[in-house]
Amino acid sequence: MKKPLILVTNDDGITAPGLRALISVMKEIGEVVVVAPDSPQSGMGHAITLDNTLYSKKVVIDKEKGAPLEYSCSGTPADCVKLALQELLDRRPDICVSGINHGSNSSINVIYSGTMSAAIEAGIEGVPAIGFSLCDYGWDADFQPSLKFVKKIVVETLKNGIPKGTVLNVNIPKTDGTPPKGIKICRQARANWKEKFDKRTSPTGKEYYWLTGEFELLDKGEDTDEWALAHGYVSVVPTQFDLTAHHTIPQLNNWTLNEQE
Amino acid sequence: MKKPLILVTNDDGITAPGLRALISVMKEIGEVVVVAPDSPQSGMGHAITLDNTLYSKKVVIDKEKGAPLEYSCSGTPADCVKLALQELLDRRPDICVSGINHGSNSSINVIYSGTMSAAIEAGIEGVPAIGFSLCDYGWDADFQPSLKFVKKIVVETLKNGIPKGTVLNVNIPKTDGTPPKGIKICRQARANWKEKFDKRTSPTGKEYYWLTGEFELLDKGEDTDEWALAHGYVSVVPTQFDLTAHHTIPQLNNWTLNEQE
Repeated sequence: MKKPLILVTNDDGITAPGLRALISVMKEIGEVVVVAPDSPQSGMGHAITLDNTLYSKKVVIDKEKGAPLEYSCSGTPADCVKLALQELLDRRPDICVSGINHGSNSSINVIYSGTMSAAIEAGIEGVPAIGFSLCDYGWDADFQPSLKFVKKIVVETLKNGIPKGTVLNVNIPKTDGTPPKGIKICRQARANWKEKFDKRTSPTGKEYYWLTGEFELLDKGEDTDEWALAHGYVSVVPTQFDLTAHHTIPQLNNWTLNEQE
Repeated sequence: MKKPLILVTNDDGITAPGLRALISVMKEIGEVVVVAPDSPQSGMGHAITLDNTLYSKKVVIDKEKGAPLEYSCSGTPADCVKLALQELLDRRPDICVSGINHGSNSSINVIYSGTMSAAIEAGIEGVPAIGFSLCDYGWDADFQPSLKFVKKIVVETLKNGIPKGTVLNVNIPKTDGTPPKGIKICRQARANWKEKFDKRTSPTGKEYYWLTGEFELLDKGEDTDEWALAHGYVSVVPTQFDLTAHHTIPQLNNWTLNEQE
């Protein structure tokens, strides 16, 4: 049987340890091609490069443990997936995996996530796709306890297919040595960021800001990703790219939008 | 009665004619403050500035027709909204409007849209929000026939409130002189972009790409935004930022994710 073709990407850049860990475990499952940004792209949301040129080149990052074929790309994670599907791969991948992100993409973070934007881009193109994130922002985070779960989720996805119109958002708790307790299918918790802007003055007298903030969980539901992660489980949220709030359409149809003033 | 406070932003930049048109009509409804990017940010999706400084300054773009208070900002549309809400406004806005974008943000384009990312950011913060786009990419597009509809939708939103967890994605057809026929509440049509990469070689011999593509509509539904626009109607899609595909959770719970190999 032909091995599945696995497209691997991320948003932390092609040298990130999380990507390297993901490559190592994907090589146990299939044929791996990497197309990843040449520099970190965190917080890029679903950005694409419209008014600029895109560069891409074959690279060797880790001759022994890397993938047989790796490309770095000057664009965003979504650009990487578009370029891979249209230009760089010689056949359609069986799955696209993105990550493992250094840091959480649970709850509302999915909106800002470059990791998930790559997965969503693949999903829009009809390729089964999964974004993986470890809830540890450290560059030296320990990805080892995650890998068993990453492998299981990819194998199950290849076996079952993925629900139409969705991609999977997988977050893995930081558990300091003990492995996660298991995997839970969840919904995205309601949450937001309470921004604080750190206002400073440059040496030339110009005012500028650093964006900082505190995560604010607004949802105590035991069926949420935040609950699962806080209790030591890997969370899997089926994430859709039809953003229509279908259930609100009847309510909006009661508005008098087409009446003359 | 106190006039509503209206936060106006966009992704084409603070000098864009579409923003200027939006300001003019918002001044008929309330007190207007503008916080908009200092340069075009199209295709930025929901990007935010994490690893860089943000600059913001008071500007006067059009003394007569502009807003009494306008700020330009070096960040993305989502940054503009965060900065406005946390730092620049002296009270919470009653509504946030983004646009009028030079070009469509219907169907799958909502995912890539800087215009909509600003609206979604406001929505996450609990501020009623609307993104407006005209299906005409020209910088000299005629926004005049749109303004009556923009005003009506904002007035109705202030009157009715907005369904919880949603923002409105409004697209206005290009109708060459004749005004749109009316307003329709719609769902997001299924569609994607068939990318084509235009591969070139730089004067120094480096290969690079331009991202181009053709829009591919996969959905003939008469309840979609694409149908409404093609038939001369303004489309209003309630857009949510809970991306969970709730209906697929039972299906995923049938997977054997927690069984040992």
